[in-house]
Amino acid sequence: MILYDLVNQKQAHFSPNSWRVRMALAHKGLSYEVSDLLFGGVPRISPTGEKRTIPTIEHAGRQVTDSWEIVRYLDDAFPNTPRLIADATHSAESHVLKFFQYWVQTTLHAGIARLVMLDLHNSLHPDDHAYFRSSREKQIQKTLEDFQAGRETRVDDFRKSLQPLRLALAHGPFVSGDQPGYADYLAFGAFQWARLSSPFKVLAEDDVVHAWFERCLDLYDGLGRRELAA
Amino acid sequence: MILYDLVNQKQAHFSPNSWRVRMALAHKGLSYEVSDLLFGGVPRISPTGEKRTIPTIEHAGRQVTDSWEIVRYLDDAFPNTPRLIADATHSAESHVLKFFQYWVQTTLHAGIARLVMLDLHNSLHPDDHAYFRSSREKQIQKTLEDFQAGRETRVDDFRKSLQPLRLALAHGPFVSGDQPGYADYLAFGAFQWARLSSPFKVLAEDDVVHAWFERCLDLYDGLGRRELAA
Repeated sequence: MILYDLVNQKQAHFSPNSWRVRMALAHKGLSYEVSDLLFGGVPRISPTGEKRTIPTIEHAGRQVTDSWEIVRYLDDAFPNTPRLIADATHSAESHVLKFFQYWVQTTLHAGIARLVMLDLHNSLHPDDHAYFRSSREKQIQKTLEDFQAGRETRVDDFRKSLQPLRLALAHGPFVSGDQPGYADYLAFGAFQWARLSSPFKVLAEDDVVHAWFERCLDLYDGLGRRELAA
Repeated sequence: MILYDLVNQKQAHFSPNSWRVRMALAHKGLSYEVSDLLFGGVPRISPTGEKRTIPTIEHAGRQVTDSWEIVRYLDDAFPNTPRLIADATHSAESHVLKFFQYWVQTTLHAGIARLVMLDLHNSLHPDDHAYFRSSREKQIQKTLEDFQAGRETRVDDFRKSLQPLRLALAHGPFVSGDQPGYADYLAFGAFQWARLSSPFKVLAEDDVVHAWFERCLDLYDGLGRRELAA
């Protein structure tokens, strides 16, 4: 198994969606090799020129792209490992988990981007700077500098938006209960992305979400913690 | 089975948390009687004076309070009906559903309250006005009038906060997929509460969330739609 993944200037694997897959692979006890790329290398992942995004895995001669599709593939291809996304007989449960992924995307990813986007740019390999700036400034319709400005006063709103996560963590050490599950890995990816891309503290240290994130960093012999923080 | 439920001045059952249970009972095909109450009657639900909230059900000589506990009770007491909350062997799934309930509470209930709280007060039976005003104004630290003021300019922010729900509804007619599940009933309760308490349009008519809500109103022979709107 090969995981195609992005690295920044410090060789840290900062992609939030890749962390979902990295944690899923560790949860299942599956081993793999990593193929490190810059953004500029992504179009060369597919030998036949098909569109790929990060993360992409290659297994048994096949490439699978998109974190959700990859985890479903792993659930099916390795039926003797613990499932992370409920199967078709529990369709309601997998849909609610997908909602959780959308909450992560719209609240955590979008919220964190507003706090660290310029730092993230600066953490990338210089060869990626021009691509990152032009593609992201086109999306956000302002400069990276303007987008990140004022974060000290805006960070409180971001922290308030974590309230449902905070309430859920009153029921156990993990979002998924006594043991971590895919919901934890979805949310973990977002905070790990922040940690690897910027020194800015997106979480207050006395927040239960902070304590949960530290617990996630310790999982699987400190798999997440070993990655070099910004 | 008896469901203790609140009514407003129009005799509409407006409690969002009761709608979770009403839809769950319909989903399971269970019949029940309703005991209508004003807020002032809630302390008399328990014959022994124990604390009860709305909804409370009475079944087989026992009272169960809190919507989540009631639905778990129904899942266990009627094992031949479709489960709504995953059992202990699928603990991760029930935790993610509980997160969804917290999202409903912090985003939908809190957001809708900011748009209709004064209308809600005015829709209540006059005997409940003093209790409702004093208890809610103590929580929100302002008058109901000030709390609701400016909703025309604030409603866009509320609609934006529905984005994860909107994205989830791209995968099927219901949050839970092809068929409605408890996540749908959790979110439905919030919008039904708004519909029964205020003429203010919290949803834009061209929103997929609006179309989903209309579908939910049609479920079970129009159970939700029969209730008299404000």
